[in-house]
Amino acid sequence: MASAPGKVTLFGEHAIVYGYPAIVTAIGRRVWVTAESRRDDAVVIAALDLRVPGVVVTYRGNDVIIGTDYGKTLSAVAYLRKAIEITSDYLGARGGVNLTVRSEMPVGAGLGTSAAVSVATIAAYSKVLGYELRRDEIAKLGWEVEKAVQGIASPMDTAIASFGGTIKIWKEGKEFVRRELDVSIEEPLIIGYVERQHTTAEMVKAVKNLKEKYEELVELIMKAIGRLTNEAERALLQGDVVRVGTLMNMNHGLLEALNVSTMKLSQIVYAARAAGALGAKLTGAGGGGAVIALASKDGAERVELAVKLHSSMTLRTTLGAPGVTTRTLEE
Amino acid sequence: MASAPGKVTLFGEHAIVYGYPAIVTAIGRRVWVTAESRRDDAVVIAALDLRVPGVVVTYRGNDVIIGTDYGKTLSAVAYLRKAIEITSDYLGARGGVNLTVRSEMPVGAGLGTSAAVSVATIAAYSKVLGYELRRDEIAKLGWEVEKAVQGIASPMDTAIASFGGTIKIWKEGKEFVRRELDVSIEEPLIIGYVERQHTTAEMVKAVKNLKEKYEELVELIMKAIGRLTNEAERALLQGDVVRVGTLMNMNHGLLEALNVSTMKLSQIVYAARAAGALGAKLTGAGGGGAVIALASKDGAERVELAVKLHSSMTLRTTLGAPGVTTRTLEE
Repeated sequence: MASAPGKVTLFGEHAIVYGYPAIVTAIGRRVWVTAESRRDDAVVIAALDLRVPGVVVTYRGNDVIIGTDYGKTLSAVAYLRKAIEITSDYLGARGGVNLTVRSEMPVGAGLGTSAAVSVATIAAYSKVLGYELRRDEIAKLGWEVEKAVQGIASPMDTAIASFGGTIKIWKEGKEFVRRELDVSIEEPLIIGYVERQHTTAEMVKAVKNLKEKYEELVELIMKAIGRLTNEAERALLQGDVVRVGTLMNMNHGLLEALNVSTMKLSQIVYAARAAGALGAKLTGAGGGGAVIALASKDGAERVELAVKLHSSMTLRTTLGAPGVTTRTLEE
Repeated sequence: MASAPGKVTLFGEHAIVYGYPAIVTAIGRRVWVTAESRRDDAVVIAALDLRVPGVVVTYRGNDVIIGTDYGKTLSAVAYLRKAIEITSDYLGARGGVNLTVRSEMPVGAGLGTSAAVSVATIAAYSKVLGYELRRDEIAKLGWEVEKAVQGIASPMDTAIASFGGTIKIWKEGKEFVRRELDVSIEEPLIIGYVERQHTTAEMVKAVKNLKEKYEELVELIMKAIGRLTNEAERALLQGDVVRVGTLMNMNHGLLEALNVSTMKLSQIVYAARAAGALGAKLTGAGGGGAVIALASKDGAERVELAVKLHSSMTLRTTLGAPGVTTRTLEE
């Protein structure tokens, strides 16, 4: 059995596209994949609770999928199939398995569920075949799975699903560089989700268009986000949660200046702040999607309630969770 | 009789404190002051409708004031008294007058009502005494009135009340420099107001504190606002209302990044945008106060309704209104 965490972007989304750093953290919600070898060479997938938010999806039996959003669920299963294929090719070995997937996170909420599915599947499947892959190997294979399924993918999600913790990531030339940050913040993180009106690709495109129209201005905003992310790195390393919160609020404003927020995201952000959150911001590409709010240790209840009132889905979690782990289950 | 317009800041609030430009426009809401000479040397003030938003203030007779917010109303009347005093000193002449003040704007909403009161009073009173002051003289005396009543004041409000139109204003050394912009935008401007939680002084202080804690980051945000204001100048001169609107939205985001917006201001902004506004932003110091939304020529109804739903007071007006004017009323 292997498990891998989901992620949220704490700082620097959008600016990372333009060469500035982002900070991403693994959250305390995981995907669990159990792989059990079969006598034949079939791959049987039981995706037990890969929920698509706002949509009821029911799985019956081993590989029959019934749901109102069949397409989205199938695409979640596509990561599993591709992970098996790519891992088999990499190892030069293959074998039949029964895969059982459980998820503590919904699919499609921007929490990196597909990356966690890919990473956990690679780890569980390779273990069953008798291999012990290193984390960087798993991250690399996971990225390939994401690229194969999505066409284009950032290596960020699979890196954080493999390594866990909190990382700073930025582009140098065409390569992504990663720095692990020694962050030990125990304050709870509340995640609120509302349905997305636009895909990540659409939002990245919209920002690109804005940059073409207001070149220097948008470059200054990106530069400010980059500067803010560096400030946030220091605050995270020092465990200064008040500063981290303030910088989250400021980062949200800069994302508003890029026109990627929405009325609903803004409502969740302000509701969380009014309920005493240390800071709150949209996370990810925007245009709907997720908001994160950092609560004080004894303030999580209030913040979670406030976020819940405005969100279609709410999670309470922690940041800096461990990366991929495997263990062998005895029969 | 003299009249002078109120104003809103279109772009650059807060950044002006740090040497960057702001753009201010005179709105189509005015203060009217009628001055009538008396045989004696008394100054009798009838402030007929100087409303403090959200507070019922009743004036009876000539100078008896009854209201629930006695302090605020008295302070509005203080501008009239000080304007008479300073104008008398400047002209080296004085005389008894009956002053009647009417206002199309509330007091204390950040629309420059006190500056308009000061400017119109100076113009009407000096005219009754037989003097025709130039606009720059009126602006200067008006600023002195504001400084005398408030202790500290920006010359912006009285400049725009005197000259009207749309001006770009910035600090060079300790002096303010003003450039008149030839803007002819006929699109309606909707103003929504909610009660302020903090004074302008408190908000300016809060930004100063933020700048002390995040020096380079806040400086970058200020620089971005400055850059945005220069972009907006071009868009205004070209009459490109779509660009003006987008820049209003972006400016609002940058003000959010300075933590000067509030849940209510953000609600009005998003409601206006959802109703089809070309752009919407908070105007002035923030922490409550006013929001402005630029509507298309046939979209004013919808935007005004949306703003009204979230505001305690709403005005529909135009930008670039004429400055102080005087005329003689025959008996």
